Amino acid sequence: MSIQRLKGRHLLDIESLTREEIELILDTAVPFKELFTKSVKKVSFLRGKTVVNIFYEPSTRTRTSFEIAEKRLSADVVNIAVSTSSVKKGESLLDTIRTLQAMKADIIVMRHSCAGAPHLLAKRLDVSVINAGDGPHAHPTQALLDMFTIREKLGRIEGITVALIGDITFSRVARSNIWGLKKLGAKVRIIGPATLIPKDIDKLGVEVFYSLEKGLKNVDVVNILRIQRERQKEMLFPTIREYNRLFGIDETTLTAKNVLVMHPGPMNRGIEISDYIADSPQAVICEQVTNGIAVRMAVLYLIAGEGDLNEIND
Amino acid sequence: MSIQRLKGRHLLDIESLTREEIELILDTAVPFKELFTKSVKKVSFLRGKTVVNIFYEPSTRTRTSFEIAEKRLSADVVNIAVSTSSVKKGESLLDTIRTLQAMKADIIVMRHSCAGAPHLLAKRLDVSVINAGDGPHAHPTQALLDMFTIREKLGRIEGITVALIGDITFSRVARSNIWGLKKLGAKVRIIGPATLIPKDIDKLGVEVFYSLEKGLKNVDVVNILRIQRERQKEMLFPTIREYNRLFGIDETTLTAKNVLVMHPGPMNRGIEISDYIADSPQAVICEQVTNGIAVRMAVLYLIAGEGDLNEIND
Amino acid sequence: MSIQRLKGRHLLDIESLTREEIELILDTAVPFKELFTKSVKKVSFLRGKTVVNIFYEPSTRTRTSFEIAEKRLSADVVNIAVSTSSVKKGESLLDTIRTLQAMKADIIVMRHSCAGAPHLLAKRLDVSVINAGDGPHAHPTQALLDMFTIREKLGRIEGITVALIGDITFSRVARSNIWGLKKLGAKVRIIGPATLIPKDIDKLGVEVFYSLEKGLKNVDVVNILRIQRERQKEMLFPTIREYNRLFGIDETTLTAKNVLVMHPGPMNRGIEISDYIADSPQAVICEQVTNGIAVRMAVLYLIAGEGDLNEIND
Repeated sequence: MSIQRLKGRHLLDIESLTREEIELILDTAVPFKELFTKSVKKVSFLRGKTVVNIFYEPSTRTRTSFEIAEKRLSADVVNIAVSTSSVKKGESLLDTIRTLQAMKADIIVMRHSCAGAPHLLAKRLDVSVINAGDGPHAHPTQALLDMFTIREKLGRIEGITVALIGDITFSRVARSNIWGLKKLGAKVRIIGPATLIPKDIDKLGVEVFYSLEKGLKNVDVVNILRIQRERQKEMLFPTIREYNRLFGIDETTLTAKNVLVMHPGPMNRGIEISDYIADSPQAVICEQVTNGIAVRMAVLYLIAGEGDLNEIND
Repeated sequence: MSIQRLKGRHLLDIESLTREEIELILDTAVPFKELFTKSVKKVSFLRGKTVVNIFYEPSTRTRTSFEIAEKRLSADVVNIAVSTSSVKKGESLLDTIRTLQAMKADIIVMRHSCAGAPHLLAKRLDVSVINAGDGPHAHPTQALLDMFTIREKLGRIEGITVALIGDITFSRVARSNIWGLKKLGAKVRIIGPATLIPKDIDKLGVEVFYSLEKGLKNVDVVNILRIQRERQKEMLFPTIREYNRLFGIDETTLTAKNVLVMHPGPMNRGIEISDYIADSPQAVICEQVTNGIAVRMAVLYLIAGEGDLNEIND
Repeated sequence: MSIQRLKGRHLLDIESLTREEIELILDTAVPFKELFTKSVKKVSFLRGKTVVNIFYEPSTRTRTSFEIAEKRLSADVVNIAVSTSSVKKGESLLDTIRTLQAMKADIIVMRHSCAGAPHLLAKRLDVSVINAGDGPHAHPTQALLDMFTIREKLGRIEGITVALIGDITFSRVARSNIWGLKKLGAKVRIIGPATLIPKDIDKLGVEVFYSLEKGLKNVDVVNILRIQRERQKEMLFPTIREYNRLFGIDETTLTAKNVLVMHPGPMNRGIEISDYIADSPQAVICEQVTNGIAVRMAVLYLIAGEGDLNEIND
């Protein structure tokens, strides 16, 4: 392969990655996942590197996943949660991140409520930036772990059909999945109420369905997005109950047992997904979590790691 | 001894431990305490293991104690404080902890305001859960460190008399101490206002006293519980001043100089304990803190550690 | 040099350090700064030592700088942010810190809003305390990093002229800088509105100017203090705009291109400093941040480190 590494690069979104780069990340995640079955789940590829996780929005799942990935790589890890920090003092975002760069951070993992914030910074910085979610725009490591999970379970991505269900307009998970799945040759469907699907989404090469019945026909994978309850207040759907009745995935709406069920979490059980489906053997929601750490370790390693992957098996 | 380890087990409460298991933990804590006198206070028994501290109630003392214990064992440590986390997004407790399990955590240290929360989880999980306090129910590592301190100072626990003073009804410390001390053959007394002592407490095999004067006669140890000021608003005692006058431990109420004085902290000086007593040589309150780390290291090591204790002295 | 180390000492303020001790710290920081250019930015001088960062005021910059310094020294690091901690439960400051001492912390790094808080504690503790800012009183590591930066850029401190500009009354940075710069033989000027300069400041051996025009004549360094907007509410200056007009450093007020421009951060761009100046080649604001970690590593090493500095280059 011509690219050996993503050394010193940013990871801002999926659209800027080539198919080969995506495959490199997925391939690299495989041995990291194997590491988790060992007694000592730790390698030294990022020893002496500094990784700063700066989160401008609260997050348990993604922050914890990155933090564990970084620590298993032996990085020095610093967390900054903005609500409890002096970033409030009115300093500009760029000055804050420049300060972290001056501290000789090797990687900055950043979540921000504004779409494009990490891109803006990345242009003006030397330090590598990993986007851990920017508003409704992108969440590239989530898409990578979703693709890793599909590839692991179904053996391939090329040619399969994936349905993304729910709130597409406000979902960075949806957007990043669409870009990635299309690049790897999957067919992508969007299913949801018209009010939660952007008008021009078909330009991304997806098929749009406004009902589960039609949309679920012959799919291989459903990726059920989290319903954000605050959208109801904005009148984008009538009631939670109505949403559940029309777009909730349960044993009556999804009857095919061979369809892989995914959810980025945290789940609203009883709303977008039923207990029965969430706890069924076809759901791989917990494996997505495990894979998330492996994929993030792969990304961190490819951007700033030292040493050979074979060390994992020594 | 037939049990070599508590490998892969939970630590939920003291009542589920046998006397032998309690003694194993206390014995194992001895070399860990010696470690603290060395220049390098660190061993590698938990290297490559992941420990998550998830606290659904604020805590400095217990969280810090666990975190230092884990780091001195070389674990990879992640803290989750729920008030600042997306657990707010409405995910169920079980799904949150399942996520941590899917991240291949080896141990989850958990504090929760609901009695029984860790037990509920433990039944449905593979990962080991250590209860760091669940509502008024149990705080097993606190009881273990209290027993360690008594044994270290008095040479034994069998046959001695310990008085627990104050708010028994709402105290997980009291409950766990009663179970542990009884198992190890101590006599346990309860002293406090009737409104703060559960009616059926004598079923646990303790003697109840409603005045310090009678209760303190011939005791070997007093363990003074923290008064929670919010109880006063619930009218469970008339005023802080009244509580202090009737149940506060000071140089007039506790005159025997050979009685060991303990307090789980944080202390309300001038309420349940006077400055004079708190700072007297018979108080071992700071040693309890030191022992807390040693006991927690022992528990963590017995549940998930690798390697031989003798390495501490290498 | 007669002093080899600051082993086991506190670092509370600059006034208690001798000139030789200040120079020892600055000299020791040099190899630590070189470490940052290496692939593995980590040494083992504090391996097996426990450092607790307890911050009673929010801080990103200083806390992160200390945390990275500690981790690059391989210390076990614990952070306590008081707003999210049970210190709220009403325990006294002294009991909280005694608890950390009982946990066998080697160093406590502390920020507190009360001037003198760290001094009060240090007198009654064995554990080393590093003051990370106490109210308006002292911020010794900030002054040390400022002096390091001046020495590095200008080759010396003796004989040069430094102007501190802005809010002197409420600034721990100003106070610590004055003490340090005077000890090392610099001339120090104070420039600002009379309402923000203490009446008796000239007793510290500084010259006071109430206008930029006069104050900036023939200076070698300007250190621009952050304007705290809340001071305006206290009527200490009329408006932000007025402050900027009279004391803001921009290309019209500072025309000499060879004057070194410093700012402790976070900056209020457009108030005390213009974008043009902040981003000009004469500004060393980002280098101050880099140097902050090197200086803090030097202090931590001198207080509690093991091993020889030469190991950095092995």
